[in-house]
Amino acid sequence: MTDPIPLGMVGGGEGAFIGALHRIAARMDGHFLLTAGALSSDAARAEASARALGLDRSYADFREMAQAESARPDGIKAVSIVTPNHVHAAAAVAFLGAGIHVICDKPLAASAHQAQQIADAARRNTARFFLTHNYCANPLVREARALVAEGALGEIRLVQAEYLQGWLSDPVQSKQADWRTDPAQAGAGALGDIGTHAWQLAQFVTGMTPDSLSAEVSRMVPGRMIDDDARVALRYGNGARGGIWVSQVAVGQENGLSLRVFGTKGALDWRQEQSERMIFTPKDQPPRILTRAQDRSGSFRTPPGHPEGYLEAFANLYSDIAAVIRGDMTHADRIPGLQDGLSGMGFIAAALRSSDEDGAWVTL
Amino acid sequence: MTDPIPLGMVGGGEGAFIGALHRIAARMDGHFLLTAGALSSDAARAEASARALGLDRSYADFREMAQAESARPDGIKAVSIVTPNHVHAAAAVAFLGAGIHVICDKPLAASAHQAQQIADAARRNTARFFLTHNYCANPLVREARALVAEGALGEIRLVQAEYLQGWLSDPVQSKQADWRTDPAQAGAGALGDIGTHAWQLAQFVTGMTPDSLSAEVSRMVPGRMIDDDARVALRYGNGARGGIWVSQVAVGQENGLSLRVFGTKGALDWRQEQSERMIFTPKDQPPRILTRAQDRSGSFRTPPGHPEGYLEAFANLYSDIAAVIRGDMTHADRIPGLQDGLSGMGFIAAALRSSDEDGAWVTL
Amino acid sequence: MTDPIPLGMVGGGEGAFIGALHRIAARMDGHFLLTAGALSSDAARAEASARALGLDRSYADFREMAQAESARPDGIKAVSIVTPNHVHAAAAVAFLGAGIHVICDKPLAASAHQAQQIADAARRNTARFFLTHNYCANPLVREARALVAEGALGEIRLVQAEYLQGWLSDPVQSKQADWRTDPAQAGAGALGDIGTHAWQLAQFVTGMTPDSLSAEVSRMVPGRMIDDDARVALRYGNGARGGIWVSQVAVGQENGLSLRVFGTKGALDWRQEQSERMIFTPKDQPPRILTRAQDRSGSFRTPPGHPEGYLEAFANLYSDIAAVIRGDMTHADRIPGLQDGLSGMGFIAAALRSSDEDGAWVTL
Amino acid sequence: MTDPIPLGMVGGGEGAFIGALHRIAARMDGHFLLTAGALSSDAARAEASARALGLDRSYADFREMAQAESARPDGIKAVSIVTPNHVHAAAAVAFLGAGIHVICDKPLAASAHQAQQIADAARRNTARFFLTHNYCANPLVREARALVAEGALGEIRLVQAEYLQGWLSDPVQSKQADWRTDPAQAGAGALGDIGTHAWQLAQFVTGMTPDSLSAEVSRMVPGRMIDDDARVALRYGNGARGGIWVSQVAVGQENGLSLRVFGTKGALDWRQEQSERMIFTPKDQPPRILTRAQDRSGSFRTPPGHPEGYLEAFANLYSDIAAVIRGDMTHADRIPGLQDGLSGMGFIAAALRSSDEDGAWVTL
Repeated sequence: MTDPIPLGMVGGGEGAFIGALHRIAARMDGHFLLTAGALSSDAARAEASARALGLDRSYADFREMAQAESARPDGIKAVSIVTPNHVHAAAAVAFLGAGIHVICDKPLAASAHQAQQIADAARRNTARFFLTHNYCANPLVREARALVAEGALGEIRLVQAEYLQGWLSDPVQSKQADWRTDPAQAGAGALGDIGTHAWQLAQFVTGMTPDSLSAEVSRMVPGRMIDDDARVALRYGNGARGGIWVSQVAVGQENGLSLRVFGTKGALDWRQEQSERMIFTPKDQPPRILTRAQDRSGSFRTPPGHPEGYLEAFANLYSDIAAVIRGDMTHADRIPGLQDGLSGMGFIAAALRSSDEDGAWVTL
Repeated sequence: MTDPIPLGMVGGGEGAFIGALHRIAARMDGHFLLTAGALSSDAARAEASARALGLDRSYADFREMAQAESARPDGIKAVSIVTPNHVHAAAAVAFLGAGIHVICDKPLAASAHQAQQIADAARRNTARFFLTHNYCANPLVREARALVAEGALGEIRLVQAEYLQGWLSDPVQSKQADWRTDPAQAGAGALGDIGTHAWQLAQFVTGMTPDSLSAEVSRMVPGRMIDDDARVALRYGNGARGGIWVSQVAVGQENGLSLRVFGTKGALDWRQEQSERMIFTPKDQPPRILTRAQDRSGSFRTPPGHPEGYLEAFANLYSDIAAVIRGDMTHADRIPGLQDGLSGMGFIAAALRSSDEDGAWVTL
Repeated sequence: MTDPIPLGMVGGGEGAFIGALHRIAARMDGHFLLTAGALSSDAARAEASARALGLDRSYADFREMAQAESARPDGIKAVSIVTPNHVHAAAAVAFLGAGIHVICDKPLAASAHQAQQIADAARRNTARFFLTHNYCANPLVREARALVAEGALGEIRLVQAEYLQGWLSDPVQSKQADWRTDPAQAGAGALGDIGTHAWQLAQFVTGMTPDSLSAEVSRMVPGRMIDDDARVALRYGNGARGGIWVSQVAVGQENGLSLRVFGTKGALDWRQEQSERMIFTPKDQPPRILTRAQDRSGSFRTPPGHPEGYLEAFANLYSDIAAVIRGDMTHADRIPGLQDGLSGMGFIAAALRSSDEDGAWVTL
Repeated sequence: MTDPIPLGMVGGGEGAFIGALHRIAARMDGHFLLTAGALSSDAARAEASARALGLDRSYADFREMAQAESARPDGIKAVSIVTPNHVHAAAAVAFLGAGIHVICDKPLAASAHQAQQIADAARRNTARFFLTHNYCANPLVREARALVAEGALGEIRLVQAEYLQGWLSDPVQSKQADWRTDPAQAGAGALGDIGTHAWQLAQFVTGMTPDSLSAEVSRMVPGRMIDDDARVALRYGNGARGGIWVSQVAVGQENGLSLRVFGTKGALDWRQEQSERMIFTPKDQPPRILTRAQDRSGSFRTPPGHPEGYLEAFANLYSDIAAVIRGDMTHADRIPGLQDGLSGMGFIAAALRSSDEDGAWVTL
């Protein structure tokens, strides 16, 4: 394995949500090593967060970080920007200008003007710009795209994407909710936060972009300054029709992202909350339940039937074990150990003996 | 964050299955750093595997590794044993004896004699022994255990655990199949490989161990030397009855591990392949679909509704990005980037404009 | 039980679809007895169909039937109109005018003019007019309506109804398809055939009618003269937003009627193809799986957990038995009989004996 | 249609469960007409029940009924026996002896002696004996049997049938529970009431009968005199292994009958509570969701995607309509009528107009 790529992070300090997930994702396959950060616009929090993460270098300001890192021979080669939307542009411009690749959370920016700044910086520089629309990297989404591309659905006629959440059905106040419902920081509400995911997913899988749209965008919660529900009708150039429905006031919904595509020869149905399977229905045939056994992109780490959370449960064990090794016994009782192993051996022996004795009851 | 714990690995060289998963799990939360290994009993393969993983220190023999590491001030503090079952005991004895904590894959050993060796070594030494029954670390399994413990099911009456696979329904030949169907290396077949998981899971959740069992163990595939299907009836001391059914010849099943528990006041149903949810039915009430929103153990990294594979899809993006940064453009076209970002911004703007104009169709 | 109500039928002759279902529905609870019919506009077919059904009285013309039956002391008291849409009005006017209650299939008519004729006739006469939007009579739909009415969902914010079929994704030619895709006979396509069901279902459950709508109606299949896909956005007076999506070109879909309602306090999700259950999610609580055990309308015949098809399977047996009694042995081998009974008794005895002997294997 | 077959009934008086279902099943396709009954062993209740059902002829005693009916030229040709189990034999013997076909509910009898009496009577007489194991008449169960018979599963290796209920998890007292938990009337408990269903279903689909079994039969509820939980292991002559698990103390389960069959070439999974679909997994291919669209037995009345309860909801409407026609307006408000029809027409017109005007919002 080549050495990990030194990675920086802007945003993602204490209390942040998406930054922590970026860090795990960056760590999972060992390709990156987080070494520097400007983790908060608050200098003290930035420093404390960096210390908590064991970062080599902490900066109070991302522009300073871009300059300093690009000057070091061992400086970061890429940076993850995981701030609220309105900071994306300034940070991206700074790092692209310093020759550092940018991995930016979505949506691109909080305004068209900011988006244009990023586009300009990307055009002027050779460093690359990546946008983490993470859902399109799901194994079965990649398989969906392959099925459409190879014509398994025929000509696409109908596209329907939904992303339904319920967490903003009241006037919530929290770190996550506050900036997401502030037009200055977020730009758009449901449209930006989850609508762009639905939009990108539909585009990624079908390979088609609509020509025009008609929308009904709402603010459902009294006093809210930003959209929290949107229904969009889509017209595609080939005559196909589509729809996007996103909501953050759909009570009881967690992350109900789904995509349905119907063509002249077949149909696909993928639901993010059951991302381990996808229904593919060839015309006039029974629906087929595709799992990662059918995925051809190789984009997974565990065998089919091991939901991807298999790895996280495994990591839970390792983390509990680390705690015990470090002397924290809080969760020692939920870690399997020798007694479990001996018990399992007893089970095997008893089962074999009982079976040998024609099913006689064997005391354990 | 305190410094990561230096970790070693025995087994898990090129072509291995569970070793790679242990490495990801150990890396996910950053608590361990893999630094040494005896990755194969074949010296050349051990060395090549260690190089591929960028390990600091590679050993041809695990006994040598135990000695050398325990002698170093910066030596490993824990070791993952991910070999075929018949090697567990010798390796565990070596590392426990050297004062190094052992994280061992299941089942404990390939024979009762080997199991006893581990038990003896654990008793004589202060280093700890952990067994990776990973399923019990699933958030909802932990919640299941909590529900039983607090009496939400009343007195337990019925327990049913299944683990059904189909991958050995033919006389398969592969690295994974070969040792698992060899009595000398595996000890037991389905009973050991998946039966101990079902057994431990039932025990972990119910907190109860059966008094006695009656079993029917079979070799279904002609020529197979080891069990590939087992049905076990269980009697518990409190009068409860249970069953375990494991099979590796259940055609079409991937990793169909499930647990159902019925008590006098309620029932639980958890299926590993849909591990994001668990059905809890209080007596005379509608079944409730529990998600991680109801988990009280805090054993997860993503919000409810983001299946745990969310993180893996995210990591897929990071890995593709790393490849591009290193110059490999093979999958560059499936990474979202600036165009996706601009497209998303265009979508937001058009949707807002259409809605402002009472749903007028807006060209993109 | 009071005597069954004499019932007539207009349409529903040989090869018809919905007429046969009306007959079974009318027969199921024994409240009606089909005694007269004008089963086809083709006189010979009408006569042959009536003979096949064993009807007492057959008419070549429904107007003649209305006159004759109203003149008889034992004449029909109600009539089922199960013709293509464009005949509904003329038939309804004739029977209402003759004092005979009308049970009419949906949609009401093929044109606004025809609809008005029915409305006028209903106003001038005392006979009643019923419209068979059958889905709203489903036990859990009735329960859904009750939940909304009692405020379990709070103020309604979002309503989404879909009805997706795939059977017209090609230029189909069949008795059913022909008139449904002929504007003169059907009036509307997907909008009339399934759109009115979705519309009525949403209205029935929520008790709310939208103030205004915005629609995108399409003809997807080349050469089709009538709509086969429609997306409709809805605005309700209380600020709620809704959507209806109906399609007959959604490949692979059978009768994908669904209704989702989100309010400030809870949400409902009902899917016709799994009509035995409904998901009710109170805000901030786990989703609950309601079954007929929770239905309070008493609108069912079998216990919860016996899908309503239970009765149809039971009827399958009775029909097979009738055939055998009449001498037709075609399906005799699939009717359980004495051997099954003796086998079952043997099973019981062997199970009890084995259990008494501590699980000894007992030969059957 | 030939004239309906005159049918009698023994048992099924007021408060009975299965008798009412037999009557609906017999009526559904119009092949039988219920004309005579000995509906209760209590003469007054028998008479009252017969009057309530509008039966032509009521008898206080089934033996008298058998004699009298066989003597009439228009007497019943078949009789449904829907009494508690211990009456089956005496009734069956009486009717078979009188030349009247018997349609008997399961299990066959309450004792081996009674079963033998039926077998003897069946051998001595030409009248036929049918046993209503209704589940095997389900369309997809018939398709399952066809798939096995044509070799789609290869050689059968594993068979697992379950029937789980929770309604007897307490010491229930009710008309249904009382005789079912009385050894004298029922013979066996869970084994007889639901175990014989699971047994017959497995046999019907696989065409195989086990050679021997090993059982663990339990009485879980304190004070219960009869089995309420049973686990049975099965050995088949071809080396296949199987299991049957039935329980009436599985809290929260309604009628959880399921059958799983695994062969060398494929697998089937059918669940009664979702009887509209069956999963068929050919070896090394994705699971396929079979619906009635794949059924080849023609054993259904509604198109695929209309769950069989479609007919019952339809019948609910007819019954509500009958009530209104007879002057009972209790449920008049839940019957769709003219206003629904006009509303639907308004919806169609508005949708078409909006679409013609490029999605303009149209007031309804």
